[in-house]
Amino acid sequence: MKSGPSITIQLDRDSDQPLAHQIEEQIREAILSGSIENNHKLQSTRDLAKSLGVNRTTVTTAYRRLESKGFARSGVGSGTYAVSPESIQSSQLDQSIGTFRFSPGTEDLFRSQSTLPDFKSFRSETCNFAALVPDETLFPVARFRECIDHVLARDGGQALQYSGTLGLEPLREVIAERMARHGAQVDPDQVLITSGAQQGCDLIFRSFLSAGDRLVAGSPTYHNIFPLLRQMEASVAPVTVTETGLDIKALEQAAHEPSARLIYTMPNFQNPTGYTASLENRRKLLDIASATGLPVLEDDYEHDLMLDENTLPSIQSLDKQGRVIYLGTFSKSLFPGLRVGWLAASREVIDRVAALKKATDLENSTLLQAALCEFCSRGFYDEHLPAVRQTIAERMEAALLALENHMPPATTWSRPIGGYGLWVVLPPGVRSETIYLRAGERGVLVSPGTLFVGTGEDPGAIRLSISRTAPAVIEEGIRILGEVIAADLSAPRSGKTVLSETPQHL
Amino acid sequence: MKSGPSITIQLDRDSDQPLAHQIEEQIREAILSGSIENNHKLQSTRDLAKSLGVNRTTVTTAYRRLESKGFARSGVGSGTYAVSPESIQSSQLDQSIGTFRFSPGTEDLFRSQSTLPDFKSFRSETCNFAALVPDETLFPVARFRECIDHVLARDGGQALQYSGTLGLEPLREVIAERMARHGAQVDPDQVLITSGAQQGCDLIFRSFLSAGDRLVAGSPTYHNIFPLLRQMEASVAPVTVTETGLDIKALEQAAHEPSARLIYTMPNFQNPTGYTASLENRRKLLDIASATGLPVLEDDYEHDLMLDENTLPSIQSLDKQGRVIYLGTFSKSLFPGLRVGWLAASREVIDRVAALKKATDLENSTLLQAALCEFCSRGFYDEHLPAVRQTIAERMEAALLALENHMPPATTWSRPIGGYGLWVVLPPGVRSETIYLRAGERGVLVSPGTLFVGTGEDPGAIRLSISRTAPAVIEEGIRILGEVIAADLSAPRSGKTVLSETPQHL
Repeated sequence: MKSGPSITIQLDRDSDQPLAHQIEEQIREAILSGSIENNHKLQSTRDLAKSLGVNRTTVTTAYRRLESKGFARSGVGSGTYAVSPESIQSSQLDQSIGTFRFSPGTEDLFRSQSTLPDFKSFRSETCNFAALVPDETLFPVARFRECIDHVLARDGGQALQYSGTLGLEPLREVIAERMARHGAQVDPDQVLITSGAQQGCDLIFRSFLSAGDRLVAGSPTYHNIFPLLRQMEASVAPVTVTETGLDIKALEQAAHEPSARLIYTMPNFQNPTGYTASLENRRKLLDIASATGLPVLEDDYEHDLMLDENTLPSIQSLDKQGRVIYLGTFSKSLFPGLRVGWLAASREVIDRVAALKKATDLENSTLLQAALCEFCSRGFYDEHLPAVRQTIAERMEAALLALENHMPPATTWSRPIGGYGLWVVLPPGVRSETIYLRAGERGVLVSPGTLFVGTGEDPGAIRLSISRTAPAVIEEGIRILGEVIAADLSAPRSGKTVLSETPQHL
Repeated sequence: MKSGPSITIQLDRDSDQPLAHQIEEQIREAILSGSIENNHKLQSTRDLAKSLGVNRTTVTTAYRRLESKGFARSGVGSGTYAVSPESIQSSQLDQSIGTFRFSPGTEDLFRSQSTLPDFKSFRSETCNFAALVPDETLFPVARFRECIDHVLARDGGQALQYSGTLGLEPLREVIAERMARHGAQVDPDQVLITSGAQQGCDLIFRSFLSAGDRLVAGSPTYHNIFPLLRQMEASVAPVTVTETGLDIKALEQAAHEPSARLIYTMPNFQNPTGYTASLENRRKLLDIASATGLPVLEDDYEHDLMLDENTLPSIQSLDKQGRVIYLGTFSKSLFPGLRVGWLAASREVIDRVAALKKATDLENSTLLQAALCEFCSRGFYDEHLPAVRQTIAERMEAALLALENHMPPATTWSRPIGGYGLWVVLPPGVRSETIYLRAGERGVLVSPGTLFVGTGEDPGAIRLSISRTAPAVIEEGIRILGEVIAADLSAPRSGKTVLSETPQHL
């Protein structure tokens, strides 16, 4: 962290431009001109508000807007820091936005896309730890083919007609029944079918967040939420992720911020860390939601990939106030190509979100919903899951053993109890993007930690997905990875920071 | 239109609240308290800005916000009018937004949903003119079943895996080739697959509009754009629809408004009127887009349902500047249940919209794209279209004949050259919602014109869709409709206005 001179902000109270925008603009110009240096800690919102004679929320709004545009980042519970253009690769800023005037959020989304080469651009692929997608060689294709053919024969044209925004009722019944198995009491009318979990996030974020608002979320977290937030000119209030869930003290603080609107959490095998929240942690999160009045989006994207059948109760099933919105999907445990996920929540929430779903894309495919319903009703999904879990267990075991054998000292990693991803914390001083590039050159594809932070900071950790790789290849990939990390440890340091968000890592 | 006392607006220039919001709030309170009556014409933006000493755009923003929340409506090019709560059914305003704080746009979307009974709630259904959806009894199901089975056999697990945000390349090639047939030069890389045309609207609106912005669109227009605009706190700058396209003078005026961001148009069989824009009208629209620098969204949702094969050139094919974004879909001419539409535009636009598509739902279903591609490649789509057109021609002819025979004098209607919908302009003084309710009670389901205006004003016209009804039933339905209109003509008038937007009429 550097220090630097404060700048003088001049407010024009007769202007039509809101004060927050004036503050934002002047700080932005100071960063662009270099008067405020990269990494300079900005004055606290309290102090700046006092010196300008404005409300503290005005300054907070200005800082959030700077963050959403990439000119500032907030440390975990420790103030806001300038991000100067020199720390961003020049091609990002120079990128022409062309002849049209796009909405500010869309410009931000586009401009903040990663400049890091996509993992698909590496020449060779010895081992792909980057893509967190299920292994298509394990897909029960023949059984699904049977189901879809049966549905077309049975329903004829109706299978290809519209069928309603909430989703097919028999499928919503199947989902409600599955949720009941792990203690959640939801009625089929409280379930809304979405185009995968990603649309669930989009619909819920749009339902609760506006420009300047903040999403309380783990840091690191699922990276595909960052472009969504940018598009709506909203940002993350980051909360440290611990091995037992979101850090409760940091969560409490973030949830009490006046701009906080929604808590987003992945209690099972958090993406990217693989950490699972304890029962106590789930209860405390719910207490904080209750105390602050905030809704909670519980993203349980890999629920059916829990290795031990004794799953912890979902936060939603502990919730007596209808405060939790549950998000599920068939994309990780069955087929991503169905684009079927779901939201389960109180009717009040589902009614509103369904109106929004209708406005955004009317409804999901009738045919795919009917075929999936048939697949579940025949018991094929329940018969498929043990095979998937067994494969994950073997691959995870191979990965953990290889990490023991090949990682340099001072490297640590998570030990997930389910799901595809694990989190490798690199030795101090080793940057995740360096490892991403060096390992990539050797055909070992990983996801750099910067992806999951969204501020340009490098958390010094990488995510490995073992979803599509056989144990022997995992062993070889991790051996190479160990060499790459060891080589970097003995190499001279480079100080360059890259703001990035490679979107192809799911 | 009533006159009433002006209210005094007090601005606090030291407040953090933007001036536009202060103006909005005080007018809103005056409407709620009754100081400003329903239908009162608000002071012109120029006069109010002058008297308050603020920029005209500040007042315009305030008026737009009032409109988006249902407290005002703008006449076509003739000022802004108050809409009082008494003119809205009380259940709409009383509707609890519950324990959570939803985003303002989501509240507006939800609150402004119609209170009119859904057409599905009528006891009997003699004749359904309400749903503008293709006739599923004509679907070539067996051929599609063959294609989807073939794809699953050929591609195995890959057909159920992720395949990329832009969409399957072979399908984009098919689409580019089809567009080339009507003169559009697009590369497959300029095509983005969407979840139907509705998602195309969502993505493009989000790409160009922010809160307070305006979409230049026909009045009446496709009703499902209203909830989208509400959600983003944007509104329509309405342009009269004529038999030869958008009224050019009104279009010019609306497009020059400072808050205008995008022109939305349906040149072929405009929904709901069925009017088709002339070649000259298309050229003039393009000139206006060029002069104002606005992008154009050309919604060609029923392109393949043109009865005469000599289709007029799309606006996009006339465009030399990459200003037009073309929106197509297979939902009206083939199967809605595929959820496959597309956007075709310059790479600059497609790059940005693809980043947004990825953020909202990652991508469309691989399997359905591959099956549709197979269906088109085998020539099945081209073989299906003549049968659909033939059916439409027969049903449209039956409808036009029945209208001649059964409509009371002073009723007029459009004569569409393709597509499913036609627009019946009722005799002066007859309200569309009255006819909707009375005809519905007799089992004849129509779409009231209020749906397509979005301001609560009744355009005194209804939309009839002939897509799913046999000629004999059409004759009988229109006979009953004629009786209902005639009966209303001789009944005493009721003055009640209902703000409505029944979402089930596609």
